[in-house]
Amino acid sequence: MKTRKTEIAIIGAGTAGLSAYGIVKKSTQDILLINEGLYGTTCARVGCMPSKVLIQAANDYYRRHQLKKQGIHGGDNIRIQTDETLQYVRSMRDYFVSFVLDTIDSIGDRNIQGKAQFLEPDTLQVNDQIIQASKIILATGSTPVIPEPLESMRKKDNSRVLTTDELFEQQNLPDSIAVIGSGPLGMELGQALHRMGVKTHIFGRSRTVGGLSDPDVIAYAIKNFQDELPLSYTQELCYSERGDKIEISWEEENKSRSIQIKKVLTATGRRPNVNGLRLEEIGVPFDEKGIPEFNPETMQIADFPIYIAGDVTSELPILHEASDEGQIAGWNCTHEVTAFNRRTPLAITFCEPNIARLGKSFRALEDGTYQTGEVLFDSQGRATIKQENKGMLHVYGENGSGLLLGAELAAPAGEHLAHLLSWAIANKMTVFDALAAPFYHPVIEEGLRTCLRDLAKKIDSERDGLEIQFK
Amino acid sequence: MKTRKTEIAIIGAGTAGLSAYGIVKKSTQDILLINEGLYGTTCARVGCMPSKVLIQAANDYYRRHQLKKQGIHGGDNIRIQTDETLQYVRSMRDYFVSFVLDTIDSIGDRNIQGKAQFLEPDTLQVNDQIIQASKIILATGSTPVIPEPLESMRKKDNSRVLTTDELFEQQNLPDSIAVIGSGPLGMELGQALHRMGVKTHIFGRSRTVGGLSDPDVIAYAIKNFQDELPLSYTQELCYSERGDKIEISWEEENKSRSIQIKKVLTATGRRPNVNGLRLEEIGVPFDEKGIPEFNPETMQIADFPIYIAGDVTSELPILHEASDEGQIAGWNCTHEVTAFNRRTPLAITFCEPNIARLGKSFRALEDGTYQTGEVLFDSQGRATIKQENKGMLHVYGENGSGLLLGAELAAPAGEHLAHLLSWAIANKMTVFDALAAPFYHPVIEEGLRTCLRDLAKKIDSERDGLEIQFK
Repeated sequence: MKTRKTEIAIIGAGTAGLSAYGIVKKSTQDILLINEGLYGTTCARVGCMPSKVLIQAANDYYRRHQLKKQGIHGGDNIRIQTDETLQYVRSMRDYFVSFVLDTIDSIGDRNIQGKAQFLEPDTLQVNDQIIQASKIILATGSTPVIPEPLESMRKKDNSRVLTTDELFEQQNLPDSIAVIGSGPLGMELGQALHRMGVKTHIFGRSRTVGGLSDPDVIAYAIKNFQDELPLSYTQELCYSERGDKIEISWEEENKSRSIQIKKVLTATGRRPNVNGLRLEEIGVPFDEKGIPEFNPETMQIADFPIYIAGDVTSELPILHEASDEGQIAGWNCTHEVTAFNRRTPLAITFCEPNIARLGKSFRALEDGTYQTGEVLFDSQGRATIKQENKGMLHVYGENGSGLLLGAELAAPAGEHLAHLLSWAIANKMTVFDALAAPFYHPVIEEGLRTCLRDLAKKIDSERDGLEIQFK
Repeated sequence: MKTRKTEIAIIGAGTAGLSAYGIVKKSTQDILLINEGLYGTTCARVGCMPSKVLIQAANDYYRRHQLKKQGIHGGDNIRIQTDETLQYVRSMRDYFVSFVLDTIDSIGDRNIQGKAQFLEPDTLQVNDQIIQASKIILATGSTPVIPEPLESMRKKDNSRVLTTDELFEQQNLPDSIAVIGSGPLGMELGQALHRMGVKTHIFGRSRTVGGLSDPDVIAYAIKNFQDELPLSYTQELCYSERGDKIEISWEEENKSRSIQIKKVLTATGRRPNVNGLRLEEIGVPFDEKGIPEFNPETMQIADFPIYIAGDVTSELPILHEASDEGQIAGWNCTHEVTAFNRRTPLAITFCEPNIARLGKSFRALEDGTYQTGEVLFDSQGRATIKQENKGMLHVYGENGSGLLLGAELAAPAGEHLAHLLSWAIANKMTVFDALAAPFYHPVIEEGLRTCLRDLAKKIDSERDGLEIQFK
């Protein structure tokens, strides 16, 4: 076998790998990018981008129910052709993927197609080549998980059980579908399918939505989604085939329930692609979840010359984190190994109302150290005008100082509120600083102000009620 | 005449007056609130709130053009009944006004209806009462300006020339309308009327829109609005009556042009209500614009026991500023006179794309002290998905430090971007701090990031391209 030497080898041409590539090439041109399977990033090909296109169409269609009240007629006669919508989603996806492919093309023959396997910590086999690299970056991404009974059913007939990777490839949507998983993917796609007219039932295992951990916000959000669509929580689902349908039965609040649906969409998460790399053979240590042990501030795996980045870490399956991890890995492969500050955590689920958590989640707060500000958006001015007046926001502030710590929310324009709050936290603002910042009128951000006022009062009940500050 | 003594008299029960009232009553119950005319604040009765309801309906109706591309059919058959829309606007207005009226009711007999006139710096006449007050707060608001030829036309037939105060009282919208003024009110209402199907022509005097001062952003925004609707700039408009129509003629790019329209909406601004108060008789000094001279950090008029707040100052006819001014005036009437820090400037025009300026406007920047970051939203990812990919954003950063100074924009989700940026400026973030804050994917805020990257490169071309920061 031929041996090819390189300074840096990057395994995986997704978001993390390409981000690492961008940093590495500032220091050296001696890089190889190794990729197995399709090009185009999970985000652009099957993730963030096509799902947002589907959600936009679903919400634009659903808006017809809000028209009559405003004197706009004809909404009842609007119809969606889901085959056309899916075609549109694919055309937009191809547009977004094309940017990624352009980047790949520009890499030329430094890009190798094939599966990489470790022979030594600094040696890979790819196809019939041996590649020796001073440093290796592992950015192999993730694959959707299919829970067991469905995996078997799928083996018999793969048209009935879809993964989120396959949804956008459908020529048409089924009449009915069960969505397994109430996390970000399940809520986004489940609500979009429901709004597009598919009879949809979402199933969660643990009683939460979109990764929320604050029990009050969870309770509000679940109630709100259940007002719109069927959303059930259960530990176990039984599947059985009934002609061209699948029957799902489960226990809920001590009652036996069942439905029959045409298809099942699994949205229970993604598994990091660590198998088949022969990492165990070269002595890489794994944690109890089967992920190589690494330092999240340097992305180095133990003291190996191997760095890890992106979904394969199974830590933060979020695009901007994958991109940061790629940058850290890329930097540390080409410089003295340095620790980086990670960004203030921010996770958004693009259902309506948007779900978000940022900074410290409720789960991570320490009892007795904080206060919670609360607001409901049900009578908030601008939200009422937009007919989007559903939502709850909790902001956590440190006792005494009023330092903003974190927030969880299911709220209108939640994606924007979440950015505003996460920047405030990144910048160490207190609740009092935030109240002295501008709030225009009439905006959804005024709902946030109501929440901050509640928080400020809980932290310092003696304050004079002035929000502008003395000079 | 009866004399009534009070500690604090507040003239005007609008946003500023009620805000002052809220602060004063924490120190004393000995207050009188004097109001002439209708109750209910300019904002709730004729300003921010009803205009946002109209804009929401107009945009929901206009969205029908974006449906087909997404596989949604029937948009062409949607129709708006503008009489129903206006009725809906009024019902929503009444809902918002009701909150103000509840506040007024709670004030009881400390609220006097009538016109106040100064007899002495501490003495007012209201109806047949003399009121002596230790301190007086002047919060008399503003009235729409009607430019002269229209004022005369209006005297003959008041149904043809409308002010923005009267628009929402119409039973129906005319077939055609000229909107005089390309400031915030003109752009918001002009675009909404156009989108509701009224043949609308907007006329500006100085070549700007929505109060922008940055020539590039102005040029982009004007071009963009002109792609959607007729928007002309001219120094002089000639009006003549033609049957049941009004003919407007003007010079534009050396050509004579004219249109015939049914009605004219004047949106050239509001005049502070200072006349008839007899302020000049008690020796109050006026500036060249006819506004009492006051200190914007204390709101005190010279060294009189009189404080001023809200639209009557003619400074910042913006609700949250009126509210702050009321708080400052209220505080300084009941405590030792103290200077306050005013909030970071923020002004938003709710047309599409939203227009905003914040922090230092372009006009206020000093040559050679700053760099400008720029982004166009025309191919921005999420904006493209939302089919709102029109916009330009300029962010100004200080040479050397990269301190964020201000921004001007006409951009999708501009109201949210403007809050994010104004908070960053309030909190003295640099462009480098901002780039290290979280940006989720895919969001409009990523367009802002592109702009910040451009700015960062202009401020420090030597940087390594890393946005996350070393620990």
